[in-house]
Parts: sequence; structure tokens; C-alpha cells
Amino acid sequence: MPHLLRISCPDAPGLVHAVTGVLVRHGCNVVSNHEFVETEAEHFFMRTAFTGVDDAAAVEAEVRALLPERATVTLATDAPRPVVLLATKEAHCLGDLLLRYAYEGLPADIRAVVANHDTLRPLVEAFGLPFHYVPHEGLSRAEHERAVLAAIEPYDPAYLVLAKYMRILSPAFVARYKDRILNIHHSFLPAFIGARPYHQAHERGVKIIGATAHIVTDDLDTGPILAQGTRPVDHTYTAEAMAQAGRDVEKIVLARALRLLLDERVFLHGNRTVVLE
Amino acid sequence: MPHLLRISCPDAPGLVHAVTGVLVRHGCNVVSNHEFVETEAEHFFMRTAFTGVDDAAAVEAEVRALLPERATVTLATDAPRPVVLLATKEAHCLGDLLLRYAYEGLPADIRAVVANHDTLRPLVEAFGLPFHYVPHEGLSRAEHERAVLAAIEPYDPAYLVLAKYMRILSPAFVARYKDRILNIHHSFLPAFIGARPYHQAHERGVKIIGATAHIVTDDLDTGPILAQGTRPVDHTYTAEAMAQAGRDVEKIVLARALRLLLDERVFLHGNRTVVLE
Amino acid sequence: MPHLLRISCPDAPGLVHAVTGVLVRHGCNVVSNHEFVETEAEHFFMRTAFTGVDDAAAVEAEVRALLPERATVTLATDAPRPVVLLATKEAHCLGDLLLRYAYEGLPADIRAVVANHDTLRPLVEAFGLPFHYVPHEGLSRAEHERAVLAAIEPYDPAYLVLAKYMRILSPAFVARYKDRILNIHHSFLPAFIGARPYHQAHERGVKIIGATAHIVTDDLDTGPILAQGTRPVDHTYTAEAMAQAGRDVEKIVLARALRLLLDERVFLHGNRTVVLE
Amino acid sequence: MPHLLRISCPDAPGLVHAVTGVLVRHGCNVVSNHEFVETEAEHFFMRTAFTGVDDAAAVEAEVRALLPERATVTLATDAPRPVVLLATKEAHCLGDLLLRYAYEGLPADIRAVVANHDTLRPLVEAFGLPFHYVPHEGLSRAEHERAVLAAIEPYDPAYLVLAKYMRILSPAFVARYKDRILNIHHSFLPAFIGARPYHQAHERGVKIIGATAHIVTDDLDTGPILAQGTRPVDHTYTAEAMAQAGRDVEKIVLARALRLLLDERVFLHGNRTVVLE
Repeated sequence: MPHLLRISCPDAPGLVHAVTGVLVRHGCNVVSNHEFVETEAEHFFMRTAFTGVDDAAAVEAEVRALLPERATVTLATDAPRPVVLLATKEAHCLGDLLLRYAYEGLPADIRAVVANHDTLRPLVEAFGLPFHYVPHEGLSRAEHERAVLAAIEPYDPAYLVLAKYMRILSPAFVARYKDRILNIHHSFLPAFIGARPYHQAHERGVKIIGATAHIVTDDLDTGPILAQGTRPVDHTYTAEAMAQAGRDVEKIVLARALRLLLDERVFLHGNRTVVLE
Repeated sequence: MPHLLRISCPDAPGLVHAVTGVLVRHGCNVVSNHEFVETEAEHFFMRTAFTGVDDAAAVEAEVRALLPERATVTLATDAPRPVVLLATKEAHCLGDLLLRYAYEGLPADIRAVVANHDTLRPLVEAFGLPFHYVPHEGLSRAEHERAVLAAIEPYDPAYLVLAKYMRILSPAFVARYKDRILNIHHSFLPAFIGARPYHQAHERGVKIIGATAHIVTDDLDTGPILAQGTRPVDHTYTAEAMAQAGRDVEKIVLARALRLLLDERVFLHGNRTVVLE
Repeated sequence: MPHLLRISCPDAPGLVHAVTGVLVRHGCNVVSNHEFVETEAEHFFMRTAFTGVDDAAAVEAEVRALLPERATVTLATDAPRPVVLLATKEAHCLGDLLLRYAYEGLPADIRAVVANHDTLRPLVEAFGLPFHYVPHEGLSRAEHERAVLAAIEPYDPAYLVLAKYMRILSPAFVARYKDRILNIHHSFLPAFIGARPYHQAHERGVKIIGATAHIVTDDLDTGPILAQGTRPVDHTYTAEAMAQAGRDVEKIVLARALRLLLDERVFLHGNRTVVLE
Repeated sequence: MPHLLRISCPDAPGLVHAVTGVLVRHGCNVVSNHEFVETEAEHFFMRTAFTGVDDAAAVEAEVRALLPERATVTLATDAPRPVVLLATKEAHCLGDLLLRYAYEGLPADIRAVVANHDTLRPLVEAFGLPFHYVPHEGLSRAEHERAVLAAIEPYDPAYLVLAKYMRILSPAFVARYKDRILNIHHSFLPAFIGARPYHQAHERGVKIIGATAHIVTDDLDTGPILAQGTRPVDHTYTAEAMAQAGRDVEKIVLARALRLLLDERVFLHGNRTVVLE
């Protein structure tokens, strides 16, 4: 099981040499190694997967000691990370993730699904996972979010995945899982922010539709983008036909983005992402 | 040389039967036939290519007589239509169109290029076409547009193509060639309307860039869309690298849209297009 | 519920006019209408969806009477067609179809799944469908196929869908469901016919992989193609990584092809298809 | 102007650390750095761009001394490399490259065009480049190739680009510019090797067409692939329409592949390529 070392810090000469020196001294076998320097901000990103380490904590400490104080260093194994999925009524993204989890080796530990409708309970329970129905009717947003958080927290997730969860999250909720909430928006952002993007797309008469997986921030649909996908449409597509066609893009894009997160490939850099594949 | 009959009118029962009846009576050989009914607006669109007609004017008159007064009927041959290209400094769209015109049978009669910089004169003259340099320095927008129109009008174009012409056209100019000005915008509209879309795209951190060919209307970058294209980018792309990569999309999309216009396949329908391929 | 009229016959003048005349006389409301003339073979294809018919059988008879004897005419309603799925061990295509059937309105009546391994039983039974495990061990091909047919036939399917069914079918089996067996091949056919196409693709060093949905004929992987899809890969992809990436293409392409069949849009024309969308 | 260091050698622990150590000692500023380990063959590839070197020859010598004897090490600057283009009658690839060279900063030094027809002379001369017409009529293949080589050799090209040069090259010719001849094949290889691929594609009824840029080897259309592209087609496309649509793919793919070569990003690895972008 490889270790995954991730570094994000201001660029400086010799960083790769210095970091790889630590790995050499500890007898590590580097499986893959990616660096990127964002030249405008002079910022350095590195992801290294290695095996055969004698003392992982020492590697992390030595690497950290090499780097400026503002550096972010993480060292993880590739053990599956705990994930909770949030959904509403649509099955395509949720079902696709459950299939990948159950049959295709998605490297996650999906612990539960929380939904504000009861529609998808049979689907989730068919996969042997806990389903928490937390209705929002008659509750304020704050009350509902408290109930949702209460359902989530026992599972201690590393990531929340909004698999077509059709509720806007409050800043307080977002802060609770800061930089750890993945959403799929059913448009090619930044086009068609907000509600009913396929209706907006139909109204505008676009010839391509898309979907965008992004980290949730306080501002609606403007968080850092991990992955996007598109497909052609034409004048014969009603808004509903666009929505149907778009579902295929949404589920593929969301699954790809989640896998990038789980593989520790995503670095947030301001409002953008660096994805070291 | 086929005739191209185009009909746009409110939908009614039996339209296809009635129109094809006229063609049968005149001994036409239908080469291709496309209809589309926009069911929300209950609007009918039809494009028929046929040969072997005895009396084309009679066909057009009889078809018109079948249809409600608000119908739009056009009957054209597929003879190349006169086109004038407008450009600024960038060569990729202009050069691509000139290559297609000179060597690949683009079914247009490109009569001249008008530009607000002199940069592309050698390119245009190498293809044996008139190049009109109409600088905008020291002129008001109205004065410059009058000069541009004076350069264009002797060529009596059916269409103007803005091949990366980087000036915004006034409503008066647009009205002069209403529904006949084709533009390529270097973003996946409606994302990144306005100036420097690749810089906007880079700033937003998108993972796909695009280009949009549209008919020019009074509102910037919001006219009916004919064609769009996209391609993936990633965090390694600076705004300049996005611009370079995007040029390949721009030229392909513009050429495709122009061919659709020239083949009489595009119907404007409010702010959308119906493209009968 | 619309009726779907499909015609395939040698081309002749006035066909559209004649056929639409029948529809007009019977008070039909044409919802959509597509024709195509294959000019090399001078063959005519037409698909019309209409509502409001007074006497559907009379429409079919009158249309048939108009056409040459060799014409193929079918008149169906858009009622869901019975389908049986065949699978082996891989879940992605099968699971994707089950999700679409249960939650996304796939217009089919999926009656059962037959598999030569027992692996996918929990998945199928979770969707409440019969699962028939028909192992091939210790049986000749003919014996196994007889057992498979015995499992299938009570369901009287209009179509069989091979959702990654990894057995080659005999000509006798294919003849039993002639032109009604849909397969997904995990390559961009005709590249990489036969076994282990991703290994072949990796060996060849391609930069794009694909999948192909086709009607099964006696010759391996050479039947008429309904739909194809591709996605980029690069040198970092092992054969296994290509297979994983390819699964997303396979399931989308198979579902798209099945929907085309179910919507009565596919005409076989020699070894090609005409797909009237 | 950065230096570009490229290494290809059997993998061993600590290679990145050792190579970057040389760069650090010589005060180099690493602009970008990519490594890849092909794990099946246990082979290491590295491309580093750096500036600010004190003694480039010493860097190259020290790196070479670190590595096993079988290692391939090259150190180049990013100065434009000399290129000769070969063409026949089709203008789209040739014209596209000439436009990029003249107006879009293609980092090559295109020195001449050699063609076996005189058709494209005006195009080439319009760009101010030498055009050598070397007809093949009445000559044996060997005689013609000698004449072509005689035209090419004074320009001392680093690469030959076959921009739709429709002659098969002999092994002797290929050996003369071993691993330095780039071809564009008008199909999605390995589908439709050989002549008239669009006719083959039409005959087979594919729904996607493609193009492949590859290094020329002795075996027809089987050399290492640098880049591929695809686009959808349908039943309405004749072989000629596929060819027209395919030209857009061909020119984009060829230009992309040439840029990869010119940027020193392509490593040959058996019959595959490693492309470090």
C-alpha cells in the first residue's frame, strides 16, 4: 500500500532535489512523482507515491523541516477514505457511485447516504448501506442542516459528496466540512449558475451542454472546479431532453472528480485546482 | 444544381403532404428533405433540396399560397453566396477560411477582406483577394463604421463573417446586415461574455474551453448560436496557452457555422437556431 | 401514446407525399417525421411518429399498398418492448441499464437477466428482477446455448442485450434472435476485434480508446454499428487503466444504442445502420 | 531560452534526486519537470526544462555519468528545429502548418516543401517558401526517392513531416530519417490501415471517424502513435463527406503532434510513445 505525500508551498530552487533526497535516505521506492510550478504565483505543488518506507512519520517531519513555514504537507496511505453521500430524488449520480463502490473498486469507504426525500431508500438499501431520510418540510434551513449534520457526523467522513443534493448549503454547514464537500452542478460552469440550468441552456439555444464537479464554497456554484464534461445537443432537444442527456455527463464527471479526490490528486489553489494525474 | 426551398411557419396539419405535393406536380426530384416542429411554439421548419424542376418560380408561389401569411419561404439555388470577411490581426480563422475557399470547395464567393489593422494584408493578397485596410485610429465609432461599410458595400455580400474582428458593432451597423453577420466568440457562451474570455476562463479555473459561432445582434455575444466546440485544458494552461489551444476550436467552429449558413440550413427562431442538417 | 411507422424500400419519386397523404386522410397528427435516401443504393427510409389516428391497421395497410413489394413497413406503438439482458461478471453495463430502467424511464420492459456466472445475482435481485444463472462449465457450447435459450424464451423478448456477456454466440443462437441481439464491444471497432481489446490497444500504443454497440451477426464483432464512443488515454494508462476508463464509455454507448432500438430509430441496411433521430 | 534535458533509461532508485542534484549544483532554475516510469518494462523517462545554467555541456556530461550505459540523454535548447514538409495535392494539412508557421508561432524552422505534384506550388510560394516539385511519373520508386532525398538534404531537416504525402516510403528512405518522419494517417489507427480509409470506414458503417499522427516505420501505418483525434459521423455521410469532415481532424492532429515533437516531449518506447506534457 503506497504512501501519498503531498506538498504545496511557495516555489524555491532545489525543492524536488531536497524532497526526493529525504525519500532516498529512507529507502523509499517512488512509484510516481508529479510536480507543478504555478509560475504566476510562484507556487510549488508535488505529489509522490512511494512504498518501502522505513519510518513514514520521519519522512513527513523531515520534509516539513525542509520547507517554509507556510507549506502544506500531508502524508496519507491510499486506504479508502470515509465518505457520506447526500442526495435528493434523482438516482443517476447516486446509483452510479454505489455501483462503482460495490463492483468497480472505487477506493472509498461509503458509509451512508443522507437525503431530504425518501425516494432513493430502496436503491441505497439494496446496496446494504444506511439511508437517512431527513425531510426539510416544516423546518428552517438551520434546523434542517442541524438534522443533516447530526445524521452525518457519526460516520466521520473525510468527504461529503452531493450526488444531486438539491439544497443550498449555508456558510456554517460549508465551514463544518471546509474544502471537503464535492458537488456536481448540471451545467458547464460558469454558464448557467443557479436553478434549472437545462432550462436556461435551452432558452439560450446552446449547442453543447455540460456538467461541472466542484468544491462547495460559500458562493453558489463558484467553488474550485475539479472536472467538467460536455456533450453536443441540437434544436431538437427540449429542456427535458437536455436534462436526460446531461445526466450521462453528470454522473461520469462526478465519479471522475471523486476519484481524483480519493487518490489525493487535488490541490486547491485560490479558487482553482491543481490536479496532479 | 439543386434548388433549396426553406419554409418557416406556424405548424398545421398536413404541411409536409401539401408542400411535397407541389414538388411532385412540378416533377421535382427531392434530394433531401428535413422537417422540424418546435412543439412549444408550434412552429414548423422545412428545408428541401430538389432538382429537375420545370418552373422554380411557380413552385415557390404555389408553396407560399398554401401557407399562412406569416410564413417565411425562400427558394435559392446552391450557387455560392457572396461573402465579405472582417478581421483584425489574428490569422487563424481568416487563414483557415481562405484555405477552405481556395482549396477545399467552401461553397462561398469570398469577395474581399476588410480589416482595422494592416497585419493580414500579405496573407489575403497571397490568396489573390482584395484587402481593405480601414484603420480606426482617430475616428469615432460611427466614422469608422461608415468607412467599413463603404468598403464592404460594393461587394454586395449575402453574409459578413467576423473572423476575429475585435471591434464591437453598433446597432446601426448590425441593422444594415440584420441576421447576416456571423461572429466567432472565443468562449463557450454564455460563459465569459465580453473581453478577454481566456483570461476569464483561466481566472475561473475551468477544465474545458470552447468557442461559439453566433449571429450578431445588438446585445454583445448574445445572438443565436449556430455551432459550438470545446476542448479540455488543465491547471498547466496559462491564459495564453488556453488562447493558443482555443484557436484550433475557434477556426473549426467558425468554418462549420459558415458552411451551415451557406448551405441554407440555419433558421433563426427567436434567439435560437434550428439547423436542419 | 404515439404510433411509430417505419418504412424501408427502394426510393421512388413522391414517396413522402404519398405516405403523408395516408396520414392526412386518417386525421393523424404527425409528431415527428424523418426521411433519408441512401443515394448510392437508391434506398428510402422513413420514420414517422403520429397520434390521433382513427384506424392504425388501415394506415399500415394503405401505406403498404403504396409501396413496392420489397418494402418493409412496421407500425408499432411506443409501448415498452420486452428485453432480456445477458451478462457475465462485470457490473457496469448491467447496473447502468438497471438504474436507467428503475429510475430514469428507460422505455423498456426488462424481464430478466441471464448470466453464465452467479456474481451479479445480488445486483439483479436488488432491482427485483429474475436472475437466471446458467453456468457453462462442463457443457458444450451447444448445450450451454440450449440452456440459455430455455431461460430466455419464456420472457419472449423483442431484444436481447449482451451487457458484457463474454461468450461468443453460435450462428444458430444468432439466427434465433436475428437482428435483435445488441452487443457492446470494448473497442473502437473495427480496431481490436476479438479478445482482450484493451490489451491490444495498450500494446499498440493508441491515444484514444473506444466502445462500439452493434447488432450481433455470425461474424465476430462485425455486425452493423449503432453507436460508438471514445475517450483519450495516454502513456500512463496500463491495459487495466484503459479497461477501467473504457467502462464509462461502454455503459454510455450501450445505453444510447439500446434507447435507439427501443425508440424504433434503427434501420439495418446491409452491414450498416441508418439511425433516424 | 530554456534548455531541454531528456533522459530515457532503465529505472533505478534515486534517479530524480540524482539528476536534480546536478541541476542544483549548476545553479539551474527548473521551469518544468516531468518524469514517468513505465512499470512493466521498468523504464524511466524524464524531461526537464531549465534556465540559468552555467555550463550546459557539463550538466549533460554529469547526468550521463550518473546513468547506466544504455541511457539516452539529450540536451537541446528550444531553438526552432529545421523541418521539411512533403505533400501531394491536398492543401488542408500543409496550409494549416504554413499558417501556424507564419502567424501563430509554431516553433519550427520550415525550410521547404517537396511535393510529387505541382498543385500546391502557389500556396507554398505565397508563404515565401521554396517549393520543389519532384514528379514520380516515369520513375521507379527508388529513382523517385533519390530525387526527393536530393531535394530534401540541402535543408538538413531535423524532421520530415508528411502533410498528406500520398506515397509509401521505402525502408531505405525511412532509415535515412529514422524516427524523424511524422505522418498523418486519415483513420483512427489501427482501424483502416492502408488505402482509402474513409471508403473503408463508410463501408463498415462506423459512427466515428478519426486521424492518427505517427512516426513512420518500415511497416505501413504501424509506427508509434503521437496523437489521435476523432469526430462523430452518421449514416448521412458518404465516403466523400467523411473525407471532408475528417480533414478538420487530420490537420489539428498533425499540428498537435508536430508541436509535441518540436517541444522535445516525445520519447519512443518500442512501438509506443511516451509524451511528457
